[in-house]
Amino acid sequence: MNDQAVPQKASSFAAFARSAGPQIDAALDACTRLGDGCPTKLREAMRHSLLAPGKRIRPMLVLLAAKSCGGTCDAAIPAACAVEMIHAYSLIHDDLPALDNDDLRRGRPTCHKAFDEATAILAGDALLTLAFETLAQGVQPPATASCCAALAEAAGPCGMVGGQVDDLESERKGEGGRGKAAIGHLESIHRRKTGAMIRVSLRLGALVAGADAEQLAALDTYGTCLGLTFQITDDLLDVRSTEVAMGKRVGKDAAHGKLTFPSVLGVDESVRRARELTTAAHDALASFGPEANELRALAQYVLERNH
Amino acid sequence: MNDQAVPQKASSFAAFARSAGPQIDAALDACTRLGDGCPTKLREAMRHSLLAPGKRIRPMLVLLAAKSCGGTCDAAIPAACAVEMIHAYSLIHDDLPALDNDDLRRGRPTCHKAFDEATAILAGDALLTLAFETLAQGVQPPATASCCAALAEAAGPCGMVGGQVDDLESERKGEGGRGKAAIGHLESIHRRKTGAMIRVSLRLGALVAGADAEQLAALDTYGTCLGLTFQITDDLLDVRSTEVAMGKRVGKDAAHGKLTFPSVLGVDESVRRARELTTAAHDALASFGPEANELRALAQYVLERNH
Repeated sequence: MNDQAVPQKASSFAAFARSAGPQIDAALDACTRLGDGCPTKLREAMRHSLLAPGKRIRPMLVLLAAKSCGGTCDAAIPAACAVEMIHAYSLIHDDLPALDNDDLRRGRPTCHKAFDEATAILAGDALLTLAFETLAQGVQPPATASCCAALAEAAGPCGMVGGQVDDLESERKGEGGRGKAAIGHLESIHRRKTGAMIRVSLRLGALVAGADAEQLAALDTYGTCLGLTFQITDDLLDVRSTEVAMGKRVGKDAAHGKLTFPSVLGVDESVRRARELTTAAHDALASFGPEANELRALAQYVLERNH
Repeated sequence: MNDQAVPQKASSFAAFARSAGPQIDAALDACTRLGDGCPTKLREAMRHSLLAPGKRIRPMLVLLAAKSCGGTCDAAIPAACAVEMIHAYSLIHDDLPALDNDDLRRGRPTCHKAFDEATAILAGDALLTLAFETLAQGVQPPATASCCAALAEAAGPCGMVGGQVDDLESERKGEGGRGKAAIGHLESIHRRKTGAMIRVSLRLGALVAGADAEQLAALDTYGTCLGLTFQITDDLLDVRSTEVAMGKRVGKDAAHGKLTFPSVLGVDESVRRARELTTAAHDALASFGPEANELRALAQYVLERNH
């Protein structure tokens, strides 16, 4: 790795995360206290999943994009909460018996295990809906409408949900193999399944800060590279990690014959690809000043993470 | 029923429905063509449920509220589509095996029967998300943000989803009985489970038309009365109807020991209550002119419907 192209150490992202993490968690807690009308069981199921310890990568991307475009973290907090709610709902539904059928998530029982399947389905629905309420009420005009539209587009049938449907389908068909077609298909799935929410996190932060078209485009390129790196390192961790470190079942991708970067490209080529994408992520930020240093450090963190 | 207090015949709503129905269906069709990125199976599952023949009561409420407040139906069409998408998603998820476990809906196989459970869960998620995309992109400022916030609040954990959780819970516990506590609990469930979406349909139409606070409050009262009438007549139809006329299994409320208006109040008192609420719905529209005549007729239609 070229130290000049990648000047920010992953540790400087960790420093930001230590201060921003508690701020995000406090805001998520406040958003889900929910008054009269919300049944206790529903609120507890939502909070069980939303407030479980997590990396909060997506909300941090919102805050860092806002900062990089000259905005404040405070103004971006509602959008940060909204993307984490979408992320949490997607995990609840993905874990259901009809989908990935997972019992463990972030080291805790999944929502349908801790509660029941009906409650988990409805808690996911409630978090998805609350994300738009939080965004629509918390983002100041004139960015409100564009933020709602962008989040819905990224999370919807042509974005995250579409990617999840194709991912399940490819798993069912046992699509594996190597070659250009396989890698194209794999990248198309992840560009939507995980990439769309990463890109829109950056976009929301930028919109809140009143970014111009050039800034939006640069962050979109950065997000595309970061999203794929994130997925590649996730796949690599599944191959390498132990269950204890990940807090969820691992090695199951291979057991399910799932299409992954290591299974298509091999481990070494996957590592090379992740490094190349990290460099491209840094290059995309060339026009930003030191206010984007944490975004630079985050790219390095995603590349080097071990959990 | 006093003909002076209820001057509009249900048939004049039917005339409106014959022209508005196809307009709404065409818009729903256009919203769900969905280009690249949306898997074919997902699109088909969404359309299977959304485009199934239905009464389209909620989208018609949006259009009629807009008209009553001096707006146009055309400007209200995106909001009309959004509420129907929320309604369709809620039916898909309610029909799942973990919830009501229904095989038949609107005379067709339910989504998880026509496709599979994973696809049905994700098609519901996609419709819920697409509702906000349609609203955020289609409603013109300055109403966009307030419409998104109102729809999310009505559909979310303190609204429709919360009501559904309490309804499932009361069914599990086999809560029945009569008395003031039972009727209060039942009304609290339906004010959220069905009432919130009916009220917000009117609110969205009014917001799109630039309604004032007095108009919003009047329509809210009308919607509260209409929503409860709708639920009472639904419960009465379950007791009385045949499976052929309803296109779904009937008589199952009683079989499940479900809390319903006839089970709490008895059939005669339920009928009396529905009539009383219909009169109150008409009274709420007293300050509106003839442009609200279809809303008046709709209240009568809901009272008299037999399917």
